[in-house]
Amino acid sequence: MSAAAWGEALAAVGGTAGSSTTVVSICVFTAVLCLCLVAGHLLEENKWVNESITALIIGCLIGAIIFLLTKGKQSHILRFDEQLFFIYVLPPIIFNAGFQVKKKQFFHNFMTIMSFGVFGVFISVAIVSAGCYWLFPKVGFGELDASDYLALGAIFSSTDTVCTLQVINQDETPRLYSLVFGEGVVNDATAVVLFNAIKNLNISQLKGGVVLKVISDFLYLFATSTILGISIGLSTAYILKALYLGRHSTDREVALMALMAYLSYMLAELLDLSGILTVFFCGIVMSHYAWHNVTANSRITTKHIFATLSFIAETFIFLYVGMDALDIDKWKTSKASFKTSISIFGIIILFVLLGRAAFVFPISILSNNMSGSSERTPITFKHQVVIWWAGLMRGAVSIALAYNQFTFSGVTSDPVHATIITSTIIVVFFTTLVFGFLTRPLITAMLPRHSRALSRGHSTGSNSPKDDFTMPFFSTDEDASGSGIVLEQAKRSISMLLERPVHTVHIYWRKFDDKFMRPIFGGPQSH
Amino acid sequence: MSAAAWGEALAAVGGTAGSSTTVVSICVFTAVLCLCLVAGHLLEENKWVNESITALIIGCLIGAIIFLLTKGKQSHILRFDEQLFFIYVLPPIIFNAGFQVKKKQFFHNFMTIMSFGVFGVFISVAIVSAGCYWLFPKVGFGELDASDYLALGAIFSSTDTVCTLQVINQDETPRLYSLVFGEGVVNDATAVVLFNAIKNLNISQLKGGVVLKVISDFLYLFATSTILGISIGLSTAYILKALYLGRHSTDREVALMALMAYLSYMLAELLDLSGILTVFFCGIVMSHYAWHNVTANSRITTKHIFATLSFIAETFIFLYVGMDALDIDKWKTSKASFKTSISIFGIIILFVLLGRAAFVFPISILSNNMSGSSERTPITFKHQVVIWWAGLMRGAVSIALAYNQFTFSGVTSDPVHATIITSTIIVVFFTTLVFGFLTRPLITAMLPRHSRALSRGHSTGSNSPKDDFTMPFFSTDEDASGSGIVLEQAKRSISMLLERPVHTVHIYWRKFDDKFMRPIFGGPQSH
Repeated sequence: MSAAAWGEALAAVGGTAGSSTTVVSICVFTAVLCLCLVAGHLLEENKWVNESITALIIGCLIGAIIFLLTKGKQSHILRFDEQLFFIYVLPPIIFNAGFQVKKKQFFHNFMTIMSFGVFGVFISVAIVSAGCYWLFPKVGFGELDASDYLALGAIFSSTDTVCTLQVINQDETPRLYSLVFGEGVVNDATAVVLFNAIKNLNISQLKGGVVLKVISDFLYLFATSTILGISIGLSTAYILKALYLGRHSTDREVALMALMAYLSYMLAELLDLSGILTVFFCGIVMSHYAWHNVTANSRITTKHIFATLSFIAETFIFLYVGMDALDIDKWKTSKASFKTSISIFGIIILFVLLGRAAFVFPISILSNNMSGSSERTPITFKHQVVIWWAGLMRGAVSIALAYNQFTFSGVTSDPVHATIITSTIIVVFFTTLVFGFLTRPLITAMLPRHSRALSRGHSTGSNSPKDDFTMPFFSTDEDASGSGIVLEQAKRSISMLLERPVHTVHIYWRKFDDKFMRPIFGGPQSH
Repeated sequence: MSAAAWGEALAAVGGTAGSSTTVVSICVFTAVLCLCLVAGHLLEENKWVNESITALIIGCLIGAIIFLLTKGKQSHILRFDEQLFFIYVLPPIIFNAGFQVKKKQFFHNFMTIMSFGVFGVFISVAIVSAGCYWLFPKVGFGELDASDYLALGAIFSSTDTVCTLQVINQDETPRLYSLVFGEGVVNDATAVVLFNAIKNLNISQLKGGVVLKVISDFLYLFATSTILGISIGLSTAYILKALYLGRHSTDREVALMALMAYLSYMLAELLDLSGILTVFFCGIVMSHYAWHNVTANSRITTKHIFATLSFIAETFIFLYVGMDALDIDKWKTSKASFKTSISIFGIIILFVLLGRAAFVFPISILSNNMSGSSERTPITFKHQVVIWWAGLMRGAVSIALAYNQFTFSGVTSDPVHATIITSTIIVVFFTTLVFGFLTRPLITAMLPRHSRALSRGHSTGSNSPKDDFTMPFFSTDEDASGSGIVLEQAKRSISMLLERPVHTVHIYWRKFDDKFMRPIFGGPQSH
């Protein structure tokens, strides 16, 4: 096919979604995804660049090539489609996050993660919204209403931690990793749920009670979504254990796990719950129970199948965002001058930085004081900086939410709305490229141990998992034979229960899990 | 959600493709797919029912339930969409067929398979077309033009061998399995390519040369598609070997293989070649070279990932066809009386049976005479009956082609076309259910050894792979030390070369493969 013919074929893409159109775009996307994979592999050991940056830049380049081939008529293969994003691309990423999460660390830091992921987002939304409401009119860009400002807050409070997680070493700083990772997942869910709550808000009847309503709605959604995800995960585990599908076919096991996971997400969406939370908890339950009920081959397959899907989906998103960036129509529709655009961008970045600082440092200090026990590694100031930095990147969720609020099926004719869309794209680009670029050097500076190539297998004593298994009431230590010692230990246990409620709850959960859950739903019988 | 609310939600489905609509249909489909999986597992040891029948019946039941819930307004969740079928559902099935095929048997029987799959389809198309052209007007149904009759021939010449393959034991009758399996794949490709050739035919200028043109077009397509598939497979193997992606991440290997496979299909479609043939040969090459260049975990994962995808896609198709069957609009649009419908159905079934008999038995006899060597198992009469029977089922390809020819985006207002669609659905149902139901008993009767529960591992001596490795010129047998014996052997080799050209070509191929291909593209270095 000649370049001209390609150009023609590509020019047809923007129009109707005909058969040949779809084929061309799928071809280009698949080929470019392969390119990204290979590029990502070759750049793996590079100190500055990561996979997201590669995909974003390649996407941009492809967009530019298409733009030149079609002589300026066209610059993107597909319009950014939030439905595609929320229905097909996001679920595998979140499910895999739940499936691969180190559950022990996650639940140990549950309260801190929730504080970051829930309260943090509320604080950030408030600050970004207020900041934009205050400063946007001052740069001559004031035609938004109150709900738009709130939506802006939610859009720019959803973080993208993929980039940072590639750098932090899970073995060396397990707590930090768990906090950044956990916050990333909860943050996604909170931002989306809050965004929807704001969309449904009747802004004209804004009263004091409304904040309470949003919070209670949020808690209701959180609880029901979690319960749905856990139920579906447990059902899958039970079916796999009771019927032992692997007896006849390994493929049925793998298919059932994948389909049930997807069903949990779609069912949550159908019932107007948060699919992200549901599929995340479904992933946790499946890896804890269902995964142990399948054949060895299915275990290897599911582990890699979900990771691969998630990996492709992530690369796809950055590629998509990169290709979408050069969409000329949007830039033409936005009538904002260069100066206004730069001001808007500056305001958003400023309040993103402030909004995040406003909750990371206070919550970290609070968490350090609350845990009150010397056994737990405190969140040092350097770790706080890393957590703050890790959440500065904005990604696909921001873009998807912006499209949802400010366009109709990906198109807008309102110059103000087009400006918001282009600003969102610039913010996503800037944070992913510039902040992403600086992440590795910053983390090397903050966590110097990361720069030294520590030999693997050298585990840091203070975080060895053994610590977590000391049962307060049911100790079987040999030196606990005397009754005085028993009494002493009981006293210590009670004080531990008061001091570290989460930790103690966790211990009782393990007993309950071993005694009642695992015999029914499967899993290794002993630790 | 109450039943009424569900009914309402489902009633909305037929209309616009809104967001909630998609969510509802994906939910129902995913849930029903899970149901089919579990049902298939429970019925695995049943003598009569197989997975296709289960999915078809469950699909029908769900259709009926939706029909009742919506009070007759609606009976299907999604319209049968050939684009969805050809772009997303068919590629994994065909790729997996190539990936899992026993290459040795397939290439040994290459000529016979090609005769069945290519000439057979041509003969079948001619007989079905002529038969319908002759008898349709006699039952008062004659408003079709010549190209419609030819299209009907192609539609009812594509077979669905899934059902039979579940019954034939690959270890006991490897040649029979390979013939049925190979024909199934080649048949799909031939039917689709021929169908497209007929569609593009200018029927008004029908001359004698046209048949030659169709055949030469077909050969060109076959050659180019095969070359494309092999090239992409080899490139993947080379990339995986040269870069060793697994060093950093297993997921990249798996993702690259899956994406390149899909790319081969879409690229073929983009270049107007046969995607089915391309992806099939890409699968063969990938399993022969690329698969050996990845880590052990990736090998297990890819094997199961492709099998699982194919499995889900197959179940999905039968479910889809089952749900689509009760679409009231089509039955209303078709104005054919019950008597006419039955006659049309009878005519089609008659010529399907005749058209298949007309090539299976002659080609089998020809193949038995051609091979002319006693070392090759001949195709016995009983095996011929099994091959004939195995190709009587009609499946999703027939439906997809019928929709392509006789509807516009799944809808038709022409009563004649609607009648063809409903007839196709009846034929697919009848052949899958009735013929499928009889397959297991028939094969048990024809191949009595299948009924005896032979212990696994007991391999039938005449087909042990060792037979295939005797090199005619390069024998290293110990008793070939005397020069007279060497001469004798050379003579035997030459006569073998004349007698069994395919077999001998195969031996030289293996030498070439070992010496040149495997060092570049990977694979085990010795047999």
